[in-house]
Amino acid sequence: MAALAFGHKNPDTDTVVSALAAADLKTKTGTETKAVTLGECPPETVFVLEKFGIAKPEVVTSVAGQDVVIVDTTDLSQLPDDIAEANVLAIYDHHKLGSLTTTNPLEMWVGPVGSTATMLYMAYQYNNVEIPKDLAGAMLCALLSDTVMFKSPTCTDKDKEVADELAKIAGIGDMMDLGMEMFKVKSAVDDATAEELVFRDYKDFDMSGKKVGIGQLEVVDLSMLEPRKAELAEQIKKVKAEGRHSVFLLLTDIMKEGSAMLIVSDDASVVEKAFGVAGDTEVWLDGVMSRKKQVVPNFEKAFASL
Amino acid sequence: MAALAFGHKNPDTDTVVSALAAADLKTKTGTETKAVTLGECPPETVFVLEKFGIAKPEVVTSVAGQDVVIVDTTDLSQLPDDIAEANVLAIYDHHKLGSLTTTNPLEMWVGPVGSTATMLYMAYQYNNVEIPKDLAGAMLCALLSDTVMFKSPTCTDKDKEVADELAKIAGIGDMMDLGMEMFKVKSAVDDATAEELVFRDYKDFDMSGKKVGIGQLEVVDLSMLEPRKAELAEQIKKVKAEGRHSVFLLLTDIMKEGSAMLIVSDDASVVEKAFGVAGDTEVWLDGVMSRKKQVVPNFEKAFASL
Repeated sequence: MAALAFGHKNPDTDTVVSALAAADLKTKTGTETKAVTLGECPPETVFVLEKFGIAKPEVVTSVAGQDVVIVDTTDLSQLPDDIAEANVLAIYDHHKLGSLTTTNPLEMWVGPVGSTATMLYMAYQYNNVEIPKDLAGAMLCALLSDTVMFKSPTCTDKDKEVADELAKIAGIGDMMDLGMEMFKVKSAVDDATAEELVFRDYKDFDMSGKKVGIGQLEVVDLSMLEPRKAELAEQIKKVKAEGRHSVFLLLTDIMKEGSAMLIVSDDASVVEKAFGVAGDTEVWLDGVMSRKKQVVPNFEKAFASL
Repeated sequence: MAALAFGHKNPDTDTVVSALAAADLKTKTGTETKAVTLGECPPETVFVLEKFGIAKPEVVTSVAGQDVVIVDTTDLSQLPDDIAEANVLAIYDHHKLGSLTTTNPLEMWVGPVGSTATMLYMAYQYNNVEIPKDLAGAMLCALLSDTVMFKSPTCTDKDKEVADELAKIAGIGDMMDLGMEMFKVKSAVDDATAEELVFRDYKDFDMSGKKVGIGQLEVVDLSMLEPRKAELAEQIKKVKAEGRHSVFLLLTDIMKEGSAMLIVSDDASVVEKAFGVAGDTEVWLDGVMSRKKQVVPNFEKAFASL
């Protein structure tokens, strides 16, 4: 039975493409591995897979008894419920170290870089394995997506260097054109319900014992979302009512390089504690673009001091 | 303030030397880092450091507020009590993934190889940094120690390849001579109390909610330990009385390639469940040399089914 490679729940482009890359690399280094996802691919990812002619991976929910390769997370809450019954062979990630533990020694490629695709590039290079042309194009998109076209504070020089190499392999002349095309797909909000928008890139966190949900929508121009704000505020109230202390929705403007954050919380003072800006239902966070590097650490400290 | 590099409590040669290597590599790649240990070095490690003219690292117990580099473990129980208040920059390890979590993204070099020194060699190579001659000699000793001179089932082809490279850098002609010299120091039991012997390489584990201690003594000939067995059995009874469900002491014969295991347990049937050999106070485990790869996983499964 082939090993399974997958990323986090509510998959995004970096998770899906990194699972595909991990499966390709593992298979070529001797461990037959198949990429799968833990949920349906969002529109941006569908666009990327179609653009490079890559089949959409199958969705799985249970992995008990399987050999697995995990990408883009080490948080138990973002993995299948029966992950403890799987045998973890390898992890590729660029996040903080989460709550996952394993029963056996394993391989880990983890670095403080802008995308998991960047770590996969390094692992390919270390193993002297060539990256297929179409996969390199998809990996470039994953990198551009997770680094918000190099504008995220999580982006490093290594990411830029790897992006150049991937563009060469994929034969892509203007990667910023490709990035804009992709982000326009990601930004499309007209056909999506408020629920789809909130969950497009949504994660739950345990912060000092409180369940906190944080969603993020990245758009090329925030004014696109203006007519939908009331609906989105209603939707996060519903999500909060399912037993959460707070739900925050970041509406990130890629061009303005900042985020409007919609707030619903049992104690909205946590927002001022975290960011020095007070607001009961909405604040503007100038320069804040990264949930992982800016929003989560600030909230973790603020919730610890509530 | 320089970052601190350290390994697990009750340090062994791989932990101490890998901390020295991590500190050297981090410093040379731009992050000033100092190696420390979480306890006194055992005789084998003292021998290795003296042989290669390397100063013994300072002992620390608290790391709150510091930048840290962790080697050879990701288990909270084997790290300083205030590790959650430190900022983890990097981890180099070859064990299963443990209970440590971090607040920020970090760098991880983890592989299913025989020693953490092997991962450090790979990280040096990846960063194009030369390993100093004396440090390479100490790293070779760490690798030979943790792989029991390539006899441990944790040993891989990669470890053998890296050992050859380290021997070249260190100018060491016969590495097996060096290994035997080192293991004779490790085997020396005449001057040590039973307490010192039990804790020379001792670790506590949480197995399905039960506290289980497992120590290991590696000797070149088990008959050296014969006159001390009664004392050692008394000593592990004392350790068990401090609130543990079981304490096991592996007396590993490197040449015979197996271990006598001294047992003291609230339910010694766990030994038969784990290894298929019954015994109330002692069993011989043929071919068992690795606590990590053979003893811990078997006991974890056996305790889960108690």
